[in-house]
Amino acid sequence: MAEARLAARPIRRADRARQVADVLRHQIHCGAYDDGLPGEPELAAEFAVSRNIIREALAALKAEGLIQRGPRIGTHVAQHKFDHDLDALLGLQETFNGQQVRNEVRVATTVSAPPSVARRLLLVAGAQVVFIERLRYLGDVPLSLDQTYLAPDIGAAVLAHPLEAHDVFPLLERISGQPLGAASLALEAIPADPHSAAILQVPGGAALLMLERLTSLADGTPVDLEYIRMRGDRVTMRGKLTRSTP
Amino acid sequence: MAEARLAARPIRRADRARQVADVLRHQIHCGAYDDGLPGEPELAAEFAVSRNIIREALAALKAEGLIQRGPRIGTHVAQHKFDHDLDALLGLQETFNGQQVRNEVRVATTVSAPPSVARRLLLVAGAQVVFIERLRYLGDVPLSLDQTYLAPDIGAAVLAHPLEAHDVFPLLERISGQPLGAASLALEAIPADPHSAAILQVPGGAALLMLERLTSLADGTPVDLEYIRMRGDRVTMRGKLTRSTP
Repeated sequence: MAEARLAARPIRRADRARQVADVLRHQIHCGAYDDGLPGEPELAAEFAVSRNIIREALAALKAEGLIQRGPRIGTHVAQHKFDHDLDALLGLQETFNGQQVRNEVRVATTVSAPPSVARRLLLVAGAQVVFIERLRYLGDVPLSLDQTYLAPDIGAAVLAHPLEAHDVFPLLERISGQPLGAASLALEAIPADPHSAAILQVPGGAALLMLERLTSLADGTPVDLEYIRMRGDRVTMRGKLTRSTP
Repeated sequence: MAEARLAARPIRRADRARQVADVLRHQIHCGAYDDGLPGEPELAAEFAVSRNIIREALAALKAEGLIQRGPRIGTHVAQHKFDHDLDALLGLQETFNGQQVRNEVRVATTVSAPPSVARRLLLVAGAQVVFIERLRYLGDVPLSLDQTYLAPDIGAAVLAHPLEAHDVFPLLERISGQPLGAASLALEAIPADPHSAAILQVPGGAALLMLERLTSLADGTPVDLEYIRMRGDRVTMRGKLTRSTP
């Protein structure tokens, strides 16, 4: 029966290009091609496919912003993605410990909480909350645009600290005198609206990794609701899962 | 000092539109607007912003495919996203237990493993592996396009089962006689290449949530390497994180 299926469902050409692109994407992330990608004939031999399929695969990776290609320069990795940990609740500075995270604080103010924000922070509708918007750089390249709603008292204290070089998480712990507890996350892929695209220096409609995260203190009090737009071409979220009987 | 910051960093108009869009997106996911969204004047009052800002926010959500708008019909939720669990290692059918998952098996064959695939499955380069490509539907709408590489022996046994109505995970457990162990994940937002876009019925360049997942048996043997392209407008990944001291 297995043999019958084998015969019935061969790989079509366009599917092969996707297959090649996915493997190459992983290789690029691993740093296998830091000195440039092999030529089309070498890749065609490695994957046992035609050069046309290799070209299609490379075109897809170019469209993702992962590689640059030119007639004389060959094919090179355009930029490395940064790994963001999906297993631990860490701020950006904590994640990239040792690398220079810089925050451009675009907004830092108080606003009336929209009803759904108030509800999630367990406040009455219209309560004044602290709202912060930061554009976060790793080196010279913007990585993410973060919008943060903070519960009023702790938020006012956070605003008294310089946010350009600090994550919010350790400030919340210092101010509250207790560690953070848990966070609930929602991760989506969304197209960049024109304004966010301009700020993040990507084309309009570019794929963004959108993280919504509600973080509570160890005692269960929700204090920090964030909407984080990460550049899809710059960030990979990585984690581990274990199997539990479904 | 907090006061000085408050004065210095007000919210710009385009930032307000993003702020409104993010809150509305969450409300839509929660089912708050299943009977339609409030009119522009009501939303403007709720968020204490101008109608122009509400219009910008709604335009962004429309571009994401979340809402439909029309002069006479008002503003409605276009489609609901499905929540995919980030905390448990589950197949799609297990995740949407009770809802009808249907798999269109596009490819089911053996291929020579490209070097990086062989390496991750702990095989010699060029080893024959099983390759399966499935387009996965929940109801009538395609949700994801999954490419799966399986280790040779277990993969051949998987091919002997009908894949149209079954997840691969329980098959791997039944065939190997042991539960799955852990999986390592990488999650990215990527633009849909033209061919994947056509298969998933989205516009070219649409934002996809790309999940790369290497799953091992309980004894540690890696058996299943998957590249899963999920429609960004259809899937939200949700999970919880706890804080550990960085």
